[in-house]
Amino acid sequence: MKNKIPYGHQMYDLMKKLLPINRSISGDGVRKTLYLIKEIIKEFNIHEAPSGKRCFDWELPYEWNVSDAYISDEHGNKVIDIKDNYLHLMGYSIPIKKKLSLSELELHLHSLPDQPDAIPYLTSYYKDNWGFCITHNQRKKLKNQLYSVVIESEKKIGSISYADFIIPGKSKKEVFITTYSCHPMMANNETSGLVLITFLAQWLLKRNNFYTYRFMLGPETIGAIIYLDKHLEHLKRNTVAAFNLTCVGDDRAVSLMPSRSGQTMTDRLVRHYLKYFEEKYIEYDFLKHRGSNERQYCSPGVDLPMVSIMRSKYLTYPEYHTSLDNISLVSPQSLQKSFDIHVECIEILEANRIYNRQIICEPHLARRKIFERLGGGTHVPDQMILMMNFLTCCDGKADLLSISEKLGVYIGDLNDSISILEKNNIIIDQT
Amino acid sequence: MKNKIPYGHQMYDLMKKLLPINRSISGDGVRKTLYLIKEIIKEFNIHEAPSGKRCFDWELPYEWNVSDAYISDEHGNKVIDIKDNYLHLMGYSIPIKKKLSLSELELHLHSLPDQPDAIPYLTSYYKDNWGFCITHNQRKKLKNQLYSVVIESEKKIGSISYADFIIPGKSKKEVFITTYSCHPMMANNETSGLVLITFLAQWLLKRNNFYTYRFMLGPETIGAIIYLDKHLEHLKRNTVAAFNLTCVGDDRAVSLMPSRSGQTMTDRLVRHYLKYFEEKYIEYDFLKHRGSNERQYCSPGVDLPMVSIMRSKYLTYPEYHTSLDNISLVSPQSLQKSFDIHVECIEILEANRIYNRQIICEPHLARRKIFERLGGGTHVPDQMILMMNFLTCCDGKADLLSISEKLGVYIGDLNDSISILEKNNIIIDQT
Amino acid sequence: MKNKIPYGHQMYDLMKKLLPINRSISGDGVRKTLYLIKEIIKEFNIHEAPSGKRCFDWELPYEWNVSDAYISDEHGNKVIDIKDNYLHLMGYSIPIKKKLSLSELELHLHSLPDQPDAIPYLTSYYKDNWGFCITHNQRKKLKNQLYSVVIESEKKIGSISYADFIIPGKSKKEVFITTYSCHPMMANNETSGLVLITFLAQWLLKRNNFYTYRFMLGPETIGAIIYLDKHLEHLKRNTVAAFNLTCVGDDRAVSLMPSRSGQTMTDRLVRHYLKYFEEKYIEYDFLKHRGSNERQYCSPGVDLPMVSIMRSKYLTYPEYHTSLDNISLVSPQSLQKSFDIHVECIEILEANRIYNRQIICEPHLARRKIFERLGGGTHVPDQMILMMNFLTCCDGKADLLSISEKLGVYIGDLNDSISILEKNNIIIDQT
Repeated sequence: MKNKIPYGHQMYDLMKKLLPINRSISGDGVRKTLYLIKEIIKEFNIHEAPSGKRCFDWELPYEWNVSDAYISDEHGNKVIDIKDNYLHLMGYSIPIKKKLSLSELELHLHSLPDQPDAIPYLTSYYKDNWGFCITHNQRKKLKNQLYSVVIESEKKIGSISYADFIIPGKSKKEVFITTYSCHPMMANNETSGLVLITFLAQWLLKRNNFYTYRFMLGPETIGAIIYLDKHLEHLKRNTVAAFNLTCVGDDRAVSLMPSRSGQTMTDRLVRHYLKYFEEKYIEYDFLKHRGSNERQYCSPGVDLPMVSIMRSKYLTYPEYHTSLDNISLVSPQSLQKSFDIHVECIEILEANRIYNRQIICEPHLARRKIFERLGGGTHVPDQMILMMNFLTCCDGKADLLSISEKLGVYIGDLNDSISILEKNNIIIDQT
Repeated sequence: MKNKIPYGHQMYDLMKKLLPINRSISGDGVRKTLYLIKEIIKEFNIHEAPSGKRCFDWELPYEWNVSDAYISDEHGNKVIDIKDNYLHLMGYSIPIKKKLSLSELELHLHSLPDQPDAIPYLTSYYKDNWGFCITHNQRKKLKNQLYSVVIESEKKIGSISYADFIIPGKSKKEVFITTYSCHPMMANNETSGLVLITFLAQWLLKRNNFYTYRFMLGPETIGAIIYLDKHLEHLKRNTVAAFNLTCVGDDRAVSLMPSRSGQTMTDRLVRHYLKYFEEKYIEYDFLKHRGSNERQYCSPGVDLPMVSIMRSKYLTYPEYHTSLDNISLVSPQSLQKSFDIHVECIEILEANRIYNRQIICEPHLARRKIFERLGGGTHVPDQMILMMNFLTCCDGKADLLSISEKLGVYIGDLNDSISILEKNNIIIDQT
Repeated sequence: MKNKIPYGHQMYDLMKKLLPINRSISGDGVRKTLYLIKEIIKEFNIHEAPSGKRCFDWELPYEWNVSDAYISDEHGNKVIDIKDNYLHLMGYSIPIKKKLSLSELELHLHSLPDQPDAIPYLTSYYKDNWGFCITHNQRKKLKNQLYSVVIESEKKIGSISYADFIIPGKSKKEVFITTYSCHPMMANNETSGLVLITFLAQWLLKRNNFYTYRFMLGPETIGAIIYLDKHLEHLKRNTVAAFNLTCVGDDRAVSLMPSRSGQTMTDRLVRHYLKYFEEKYIEYDFLKHRGSNERQYCSPGVDLPMVSIMRSKYLTYPEYHTSLDNISLVSPQSLQKSFDIHVECIEILEANRIYNRQIICEPHLARRKIFERLGGGTHVPDQMILMMNFLTCCDGKADLLSISEKLGVYIGDLNDSISILEKNNIIIDQT
């Protein structure tokens, strides 16, 4: 692995800035988020897709904003208030101002008996509804009285915001990196993805890249559908690898969601990395466990070569989709590690060239002073064996990944051999 | 599985009608059998292939009929008489009228010392010969005296009878169903095949079929050769699946003889059925265990996609090719089950379509009221998961069988999903 | 297996004649060797490739000859003398005549502390150097005195000798058989190869061959490179199988070095042979263990279908590349066995035809008197089952090797079936 770029603390700071913003799939919280990121990566272009626009099978929903929402008791005390936590309000709740008995109110309350201190995260994007999400302990304290419910929200014909930008490389072939901007106030799923994409972009902007890199930030599901609706043919034609950034915040696991076929370039390179550096990683089953944007990007007829390299995967950790998925789950170290993993996988991809030999039969290494020994002697240094074994596999067809797998070495371990052989005009890059 | 059509008792009645007829590969017994079946399925066409006709490597044999055959002792008592059982006479025995000592007679007697109560079944179609088959207990009772042997048989230039008919379907692609009409007086092998083909035809005549169904009834081996000689190119071009009905009478086993490659559509669908409904089924090896008409229909250069779904396979049960293979081995229940198995396999075949999605990315199910839940919630009903998993595999290439195998469900379990998705114009049949 | 041709003793005699000659990769020892072999196989053509000629990445080295080389002590006693063993002199040592102290001399002495009675074998073809190889016991006896070192050798612009010839067969497709002529005074590696190629040629000259056979004798590595430089396109286009003869002298093992892909015709046929006749054979890994001329003949862009069927493989036996690899390791029996193995593998190759059936469906064997039984009887002789199983696999595509593997029998066991079926015009050779 290359030396780490120590971004962990900056990532953690950005996390703290982004976490408190109230993000949904549309609205000003999302816009604020995107502009905050654009302050760091000025290359991002922010787009607005209008409500009502048809994208494949979907009609883009209204834009939703909320200015206030609370429940107060008979005495005017606010017992639940989104100023405490935006998760208290079900996403896309319609406006309401009403007095309700406890039993009437109960129909609109959501809590988790098994996690009495957690506020659940719920939304109702496509059906008019309203609700409050509270801890079960809070709920138990509610008394039989008349409550005032106030939701000052607005669903209007507006737009859904998303952002993208491209770093051109030597090749027009693209690597697609995406995450989502919709989950409010939760750290692992999904503010971590916003943080990671920002710093991957920063790193790639400085790197001299072979591939072109395309970044996209938008709401989960509908954002992917908007983006595919606009760019499907281009993405299908040009994408050589794709990373969906999700659940990259905590430090309790490393896990892989493969692509639909499980056999794309991205699958191969990520598995190669994980084999050498993350012995205990978990590989999930696409059919059984998919749940993030691979549901769109890997669906039949799209089939981008996309994987997610996650830490604790959505649906598998206790704090998932609750107020407990907060800053306490992440650290500068955990964010750094997620960054390092993705950096190394991108390095593998960039290094994964196809070489061919320029020389038929073994090259005369002694003449080139690459290696000298007395003929007939039996000792050959390991590095020399590796170089000769590499040459024995180098045929203008096999890429470095498959040669590494065949030789049982990490792809980076071939660097020295390749560099010497290239300098000596024994092999040539044919990618 | 679909509801059963209760044909078992009618099948058993037909079995009792057909069993006593003296069938060989040619002659009036076969004709009588075919006309009896034609009384039920009037669509059958009965054909006659003339003796001496060349079919591939074979010359069709003489037609053989027998009016009487017995052995009587010195006192004129008939000790063996085909009126008791047609198996007593070796098939295609030449006519004879002669007095013989016991030792001379012994050269023409066949019995089974290990099954002293069984009359063996023997024939000599292509070489002039005569013989009597008796139980070993009968044989031991014969005394040293002069026996009169009478065989009133005739081998003449005549013809070999067979029958076929076609039920046209929406597709010109054909399913070929065949059995054989030559084994006299034996129940599992092979009167059971005659009974089953009759009722499968009856069922398919009433069904609204996608495929065209072709039925053929003729003697084993030479019948298949006659039929292939006439229809080879048509059968090779059009047959998508084929069933050889043999040994479908008893209730002691379910077993499969795969096709030569073992990988045809018929193999795949039958194995799918058996996996879900017959845990303990036996799969035989084509090379080691073939023995019925697959020897012709699956031979190189023919290679129809033919399997046999048998109960107790020929050569594997003690009563095989003896007088003990009689009505006592079969029952209305055992015949019903063989019928049901074949019906279900045909249902699988008819259902095994290739669908494609009409929608890129996930369809908006909530809008269609197919399925509603609060976004962010984690519970999804099983039927919904199955539908979404099916959609995730549905790509216009994979057929339902392979999708079922991938999803680990019985093909029939996809019916509801498919029906909903088709009605909602989310998928379309592309078969 | 066919009957053995008893060449063992003649092979052993030739071994004894060739062993004492001082062979290097060039020079008069090689020439003498080639002319000695040409006395037996007059068809060999001896070629000279000039020093300095460019072959792929290599420039052919000077020709080297040595007339005398020794070390004498202060009293004029020769303590080391190549007249005792040519291995005493490092191959391609430059001429020298000098007095040296023991400590100066030590820099040019090579011995093996772990094998104190063995003279090591060393060369320095491409770098000017000189040295003496001695037993460690000899070395320990050297005293601190002034030694005279004399090497009367010559490196000159000359040529490298090699020999080849072709036995035309019915087909223009070629089998390539090669070994090397460079290792002096060593028996298993590599005088054994010279002996074996001579007698394989003698046998094939008398045989009526389907394939064309090409033989090549030259120095290891540079000889292969010279030959490929001249014949690459022809060899790539025409070679169906290739054998590299190396380490075929001793009797302690049978081992296989497969080709680079491990899946060529030669790999398949040799593994088939070994499975049936050498249960305990060792199969080496091309990547890990290659070391002989397969490094050239199987390199990417060349990829001849070449294997080595060895006895004790180079680098794996204690006497390897020392004076202990001498006549005591070989015997008429061990040489005979190496001959027999190669003969049988060539017989397999020649027998490995593709047959097709001339008859659709089963042939009427009874009519041809190939086989008779009473119809309905259950006993079939094994040979008959094998013939019918063969027919069931015979489709004009599968070669005999793959049919044998499928049927689980040795390819030679099909001879009788094939011969009967061919005579009866049931199958036809389509190779």
